Amino acid sequence: MADNLKIVPIVRCDNLSSVQVQDVVAVEEPLEIRLRYDHLNETITKSISVTMRTPGHDIELAIGFLFTEGIISGSSEVISVEAAGGRTGNVVIVTISSDLTDKLKKLDRHFYTSSSCGVCGKASIEALDTVCDYQDVKDNVTVNTSVLYQLPSVLREKQEVFDKTGGLHGCALFDVSGEFIELMEDVGRHNALDKLIGDFVNRGKVPLTNYLLLLSGRASFELVQKSIMAGIKVIASVGAPSSLAVELANDWGVTLVCFLRDRRFNVYSGAHRVIFS
Amino acid sequence: MADNLKIVPIVRCDNLSSVQVQDVVAVEEPLEIRLRYDHLNETITKSISVTMRTPGHDIELAIGFLFTEGIISGSSEVISVEAAGGRTGNVVIVTISSDLTDKLKKLDRHFYTSSSCGVCGKASIEALDTVCDYQDVKDNVTVNTSVLYQLPSVLREKQEVFDKTGGLHGCALFDVSGEFIELMEDVGRHNALDKLIGDFVNRGKVPLTNYLLLLSGRASFELVQKSIMAGIKVIASVGAPSSLAVELANDWGVTLVCFLRDRRFNVYSGAHRVIFS
Repeated sequence: MADNLKIVPIVRCDNLSSVQVQDVVAVEEPLEIRLRYDHLNETITKSISVTMRTPGHDIELAIGFLFTEGIISGSSEVISVEAAGGRTGNVVIVTISSDLTDKLKKLDRHFYTSSSCGVCGKASIEALDTVCDYQDVKDNVTVNTSVLYQLPSVLREKQEVFDKTGGLHGCALFDVSGEFIELMEDVGRHNALDKLIGDFVNRGKVPLTNYLLLLSGRASFELVQKSIMAGIKVIASVGAPSSLAVELANDWGVTLVCFLRDRRFNVYSGAHRVIFS
Repeated sequence: MADNLKIVPIVRCDNLSSVQVQDVVAVEEPLEIRLRYDHLNETITKSISVTMRTPGHDIELAIGFLFTEGIISGSSEVISVEAAGGRTGNVVIVTISSDLTDKLKKLDRHFYTSSSCGVCGKASIEALDTVCDYQDVKDNVTVNTSVLYQLPSVLREKQEVFDKTGGLHGCALFDVSGEFIELMEDVGRHNALDKLIGDFVNRGKVPLTNYLLLLSGRASFELVQKSIMAGIKVIASVGAPSSLAVELANDWGVTLVCFLRDRRFNVYSGAHRVIFS
């Protein structure tokens, strides 16, 4: 088994049966890229990016990132590249020529902060415990397979803009009987979900414990994390899950249904909420 | 026409013909979220996120982001929300209760910097002019429609991991005759491209002027920006483009071919490099 694959137990369902089998998911882990350079007789080490990635080719990823961001213009400016962070090796330290210090200052203007709740993985899983208000909310939410089967066609119907451009991710909220409640769309799937949750926050209607969430694409760590923050207990996606999404859903007892299409789906977590009808 | 759609001229090709028509793409624009709060008799305004999003529901997006990141726990902590940034309104300022100052300090640990070259849109398009080494590289690259038609099936064949998990984005480099050169895969499509480019940077083989790039998913601004940094002149994607991806490709004279599947494609930019055979 390659490092970038992980075997997980699932319940595979179609019209006829549900069986417990092993499935393979793509591994998602955080990678931190640090820059090291000399400035005024001092060695500076600076974290410049944390990204959720599939392990493997981490050095190429770090070099490619520095290159496409305009920080280095070729390998001649790289003195050394070092993988750190223990066995899982989730840190790459790139030591660059000190001639680049002026360039770095110029580029500093172009760097913004972005949240790592969605990107720092394991640390973020721990952080969830302290920031999520809904971890002790008990629920009796259940969903029938027949309800799940209907959701994708409703999503497609409602996604008018998607039909026009083929370029937007959608996420939709349904009640447990499968009644459509709301859809939000965006070029970024995390944005579509933030828009959906934000609307309910504005209306004082969180937690969303008694609703089903449907994602038009894949189920990544970040989307599961955002759903948990809103108290959602059942997440369904048309696409595949990542390893960290499955892990997080399991840790929080959230139901994660993926590959929901053509009257089939796989349950990666929380199968107790699914009623096989 | 809704604000989140944009009409662009394209060349639509299939086995039989190529015609100039109008197409609709999803609008992608940067949104900056700023927090405003009082601390020690001073009003602090802090930029906390820049994300590429589809305009519309910006206030919901900002509130949802703050909520899912654990910065606010409900709308009662929001004093006001203000859209700024002129007509395009690409800034949202959220004024929050000063009671949250301690919480913000705690959360500060969880915020990392991430590059804005890929996220700040217009400003980044301008920045490209100053950081990209390859803007004056002339090229005679052309690609036959028959070569383009073949690419997706080669990508699928090579994407072994994708076949197993359904969860990885791939990007592949081909020469202009359609010969496969290299594939990289990742849960994040920007990572897959960084890995691919990073490998060629490591081997001292940039610019990649005489190669074709194929993306397994959609063509976003960020992916076109990274390709331009590496001197790539022909970008093909299986999925849809965003408005900003098309704009950037046009500005830089890069060929952008999207919806490349089933012996059809649309050319959104640089059609002069496509030889209709």
